[in-house]
Amino acid sequence: MAADAMSPKITVELLRQLRQVMKNSKYITEPIQAYIVPSGDAHQSEYIAPCDCRREFICGFNGSAGTAIVTEQHAALWTDGRYFLQASQQMDNNWTLMKMGLKETPSQEDWLISVLPENSKVGVDPWIIAADQWKNMSKALSSAGHSLVAVQDNLIDVIWEDRPARPSTKLITLGLKHTGLTWQDKVTALRGKMAERKISWFVVTALDEIAWLFNLRGSDIEYNPVFFAYAIIGMSNIKLFVDRKRLMEPVVREHLELDSPSKPELTIQCFPYESVYMELQAVCAALAPKEKMWICDKASCALTQVIPKAHRSAIPYTPLCLAKAVKNPTEIQGMKMAHIKDAVALCELFAWLEKEIPKGTVTEISVADKAEELRSQQKDFVGLSFPTISSVGPNGAIIHYMPLPETNRTLSLNEIYLIDSGAQYLDGTTDVTRTVHFGTPTDYEKECFTYVLKGHIAVSAAVFPNGTKGHLLDSFARAALWDSGLDYLHGTGHGVGCFLNVHEGPCGISYKTFADEPLEAGMIVSDEPGYYEDGSFGIRIENVVLVIPAKTKYNYRNRGSLTFEPLTLVPIQLKMINTDLLTQKERDWVNDYHKKCRETIGAELERQGRKEALDWLIRETQPIV
Amino acid sequence: MAADAMSPKITVELLRQLRQVMKNSKYITEPIQAYIVPSGDAHQSEYIAPCDCRREFICGFNGSAGTAIVTEQHAALWTDGRYFLQASQQMDNNWTLMKMGLKETPSQEDWLISVLPENSKVGVDPWIIAADQWKNMSKALSSAGHSLVAVQDNLIDVIWEDRPARPSTKLITLGLKHTGLTWQDKVTALRGKMAERKISWFVVTALDEIAWLFNLRGSDIEYNPVFFAYAIIGMSNIKLFVDRKRLMEPVVREHLELDSPSKPELTIQCFPYESVYMELQAVCAALAPKEKMWICDKASCALTQVIPKAHRSAIPYTPLCLAKAVKNPTEIQGMKMAHIKDAVALCELFAWLEKEIPKGTVTEISVADKAEELRSQQKDFVGLSFPTISSVGPNGAIIHYMPLPETNRTLSLNEIYLIDSGAQYLDGTTDVTRTVHFGTPTDYEKECFTYVLKGHIAVSAAVFPNGTKGHLLDSFARAALWDSGLDYLHGTGHGVGCFLNVHEGPCGISYKTFADEPLEAGMIVSDEPGYYEDGSFGIRIENVVLVIPAKTKYNYRNRGSLTFEPLTLVPIQLKMINTDLLTQKERDWVNDYHKKCRETIGAELERQGRKEALDWLIRETQPIV
Repeated sequence: MAADAMSPKITVELLRQLRQVMKNSKYITEPIQAYIVPSGDAHQSEYIAPCDCRREFICGFNGSAGTAIVTEQHAALWTDGRYFLQASQQMDNNWTLMKMGLKETPSQEDWLISVLPENSKVGVDPWIIAADQWKNMSKALSSAGHSLVAVQDNLIDVIWEDRPARPSTKLITLGLKHTGLTWQDKVTALRGKMAERKISWFVVTALDEIAWLFNLRGSDIEYNPVFFAYAIIGMSNIKLFVDRKRLMEPVVREHLELDSPSKPELTIQCFPYESVYMELQAVCAALAPKEKMWICDKASCALTQVIPKAHRSAIPYTPLCLAKAVKNPTEIQGMKMAHIKDAVALCELFAWLEKEIPKGTVTEISVADKAEELRSQQKDFVGLSFPTISSVGPNGAIIHYMPLPETNRTLSLNEIYLIDSGAQYLDGTTDVTRTVHFGTPTDYEKECFTYVLKGHIAVSAAVFPNGTKGHLLDSFARAALWDSGLDYLHGTGHGVGCFLNVHEGPCGISYKTFADEPLEAGMIVSDEPGYYEDGSFGIRIENVVLVIPAKTKYNYRNRGSLTFEPLTLVPIQLKMINTDLLTQKERDWVNDYHKKCRETIGAELERQGRKEALDWLIRETQPIV
Repeated sequence: MAADAMSPKITVELLRQLRQVMKNSKYITEPIQAYIVPSGDAHQSEYIAPCDCRREFICGFNGSAGTAIVTEQHAALWTDGRYFLQASQQMDNNWTLMKMGLKETPSQEDWLISVLPENSKVGVDPWIIAADQWKNMSKALSSAGHSLVAVQDNLIDVIWEDRPARPSTKLITLGLKHTGLTWQDKVTALRGKMAERKISWFVVTALDEIAWLFNLRGSDIEYNPVFFAYAIIGMSNIKLFVDRKRLMEPVVREHLELDSPSKPELTIQCFPYESVYMELQAVCAALAPKEKMWICDKASCALTQVIPKAHRSAIPYTPLCLAKAVKNPTEIQGMKMAHIKDAVALCELFAWLEKEIPKGTVTEISVADKAEELRSQQKDFVGLSFPTISSVGPNGAIIHYMPLPETNRTLSLNEIYLIDSGAQYLDGTTDVTRTVHFGTPTDYEKECFTYVLKGHIAVSAAVFPNGTKGHLLDSFARAALWDSGLDYLHGTGHGVGCFLNVHEGPCGISYKTFADEPLEAGMIVSDEPGYYEDGSFGIRIENVVLVIPAKTKYNYRNRGSLTFEPLTLVPIQLKMINTDLLTQKERDWVNDYHKKCRETIGAELERQGRKEALDWLIRETQPIV
């Protein structure tokens, strides 16, 4: 990724230029007093293509979440606890860092109201702000006498001289072997949901929903196997908006049945990506009085406002988002296979590290490269699922740290090492964090690690009723840390796609959300509590876990219970555990988990003839007493 | 309370009459197809005066929460898990019970949309529906082509022949000894908050906020020491709307400085209760263009809509609600005293029960009466804080059960007995639940009790960072039950007033809320997990607990930690505990708790010369090993 150095980006000149265009009638009818630069693209993607990294361009901060606001006098960036350190290092002092989640930090709205002169206009590109955010921001500003205005030309693009072009990579088609359902089956099921709710059209804007629906993948956005597209699904229409030259490949044409559709209602009409606005206008113009159209309330303000209010049904989660979250048996099997291969690569990595670290030549970057090399040897490897977080000592406290030449530390026997990494395989997506010490950890490091482990186990072993929302489990991950006055400033888990985005909705485990959908058997989330001490070290233990039915002694009101099955099968370093702090139940969990690692990954290491890694695995999975 | 029997109320004739007035042009301009009867009064009180029990009048169900909706064809009542059994017993089969919280239960909006003919009008009394509920309901109905209309005459009152008059009881004035702050100090502090937020007026509609602000109490609503009133507070005005004859008492006139105000800005202008609408209109008419007025978004739709949108700032919790929730040292001391006296009464009660039960003459009602008698012997007793829940065996599964002659069971050596009771004292409010067995509980009963106890302890002993919202602690109370496939269908805790309502916001411990305010030292909540088996028994263990700072080993980011101190000091029956299921930490908690009960309540029993209760206390607080 085109990541800048950890030294701050100098933004004096850029801010001067931006403030000039904010008053330039060539781009806006009336001068604006503030300009909002959100993080996302026109699809509200979390990870974005280089051409969409506008917020990074203007302020230098390149984390995955953050909003910049520039006024005539000020420039401020809001981001969350994962990025406080990183953002403060990447931005120069023209920028104020707004630490979200701290009591004293104002919201964007409150801050704007406090700094703006009376009757100000605040501009934003309506394509990259979500409809629900537009609504809240607009309401707050109006109530204070200001107004939010849509600026059609993106003002960052205006001053961004060498902005990259929008990518248009080759599409990959996925067969039943990987998807379990044809795209035709998925469209039909979707139409069933639409009919149930008397909805005649659905505007699909999220890239991963489009990729999942059509059983297609791309590589337009690094780490996320998606492609730029929109879709509008009607009860007898399928309109796909995508760069047409991507549909020239015979395998894609055949997959989508473009030349010989089997049924009229399963015929895909193809349009250029850019024509979605006009085509949606045309569809809306032809709507009957009572017809309703679904669009996600996180879709862009620009597209949402095309749909007349009377016809618009804005929903927090689309039926595709929900269908995609509950993995079918083929997808579950694929995810299991992907995690086995991924564990093989990591066992190799750790065995290699033990040998190499004493030589003093292993660095954060070289481990990340080695991990990628080992993963790429596994079958159906496609790429990484996110930039590898490979961090030694104090770098571990930067929650979403990526090693760069200027920050690159050497692994040693004296410091904690944290590696959070994952890959995309044709059969599934992985995401795993292990925190290890190659020498002798201090008692304090072990104590903190053990609290994090207790939290990890508390979630992983939790039994809870059907219908429970993931956010209700978040505190289980924190209880042991809280008891000692510790905590971590991020959520405990996120949904994970199947050969799709490593972060996906609508479920997760976080105190920050309330509107998450209840957990269901077949959903897949991460379980990743942590503890971070700025300037010293970072600890995180992450497994990807599958929601499965739980057998319980009783069954209150026949509701049934759920629990988690770890898909990640990589040993948790015993050396880091203060076993005195574990309960017997927790010790049993660790031993059971390690037994499963040894059996499942051991068999695969054996099959692949990876002797050294197998020896390492067997040694690292000895039961604790 | 004028509670009906547990046999269903016959509603055929009433529903016929209501459906007639729904079409009668004397009361409404156009016929309505549905009429909503909410639970509350014009102040959105939880407990209401007999004249406001309209929902009970129409359907028979008299629980504290529930909404009735009558259409031309249907009649349905929505209530939550505490009341499923009770509601099904109190309503005849003209009514459909809508069990809130179950997946299959439609929301009121969805149900209305599914049963109404096209373009229907749904009526509601705008004084007894909260503004935020009106907004949501109105939006949902409009999106389906219907409309929500305000019906000025309450249609239940029209058909309610012998409707009681609105009470106007004598006011009690509270001095500094009980309140810690004069009403003048409270008004000044409130104005400070208003100035901070540039608010020039605040319309106070919640009865407990008015009582707290003016250091006055009443008895208009049973169990809740409040009085019917409104207040409008400006930066230099105090307008109080209350039945004027209540202000004739010299002690009240002096307390409020009605005849000789000390300062002009602390002069109270008194108006009749009914004139709030017109006076608010007058205040609004005189507002300067940018002036803002606070009103709670739970205030009545009628009053909220008087304030022009441009001037209205609707807030989820008022500053009075927050200030009232954080008890000052005088209030904390008062609450502690109240709980000591209350524990004395309960120790007496349990010692008496042990002697009396074998005689076979003790019933649910006679225990409730005895408990009230014993409490009334304590200093500054005012009354009960809610109807005593006194339930034997299967009656215990009715979460908010009140014994009635028809349902009254005799206490025996064979069934579990649950008593949830509390009182109002001049110095504080109590609320305590104990579940006991006077013979030999079954293993299963003990197992369930022990899971509930583990949940109670998990909350009571929880340590959590400053700024944590109570809903994040709810799952701690359930974990032990969930592990065995059990659960309970109510929240874990509610805020408790100080000689005020036994249920108050804005804090609590419940999975159902998200917008609760963070817990702070000085807040007081209940901790009351339970387990209920329909037709068999109910278990609940409830203490009132005070939020206090916690001492922790570390202090992450200097945030500080909080925990709870039990104010309730009544032994938890050891006989019901399966100590094998407790961890050592849990055993220590029980022993520490019982030691505190013995020391604190023992001293008071000694002082009051209550020898038998003291013996009982000492026996019941032996340490477990």
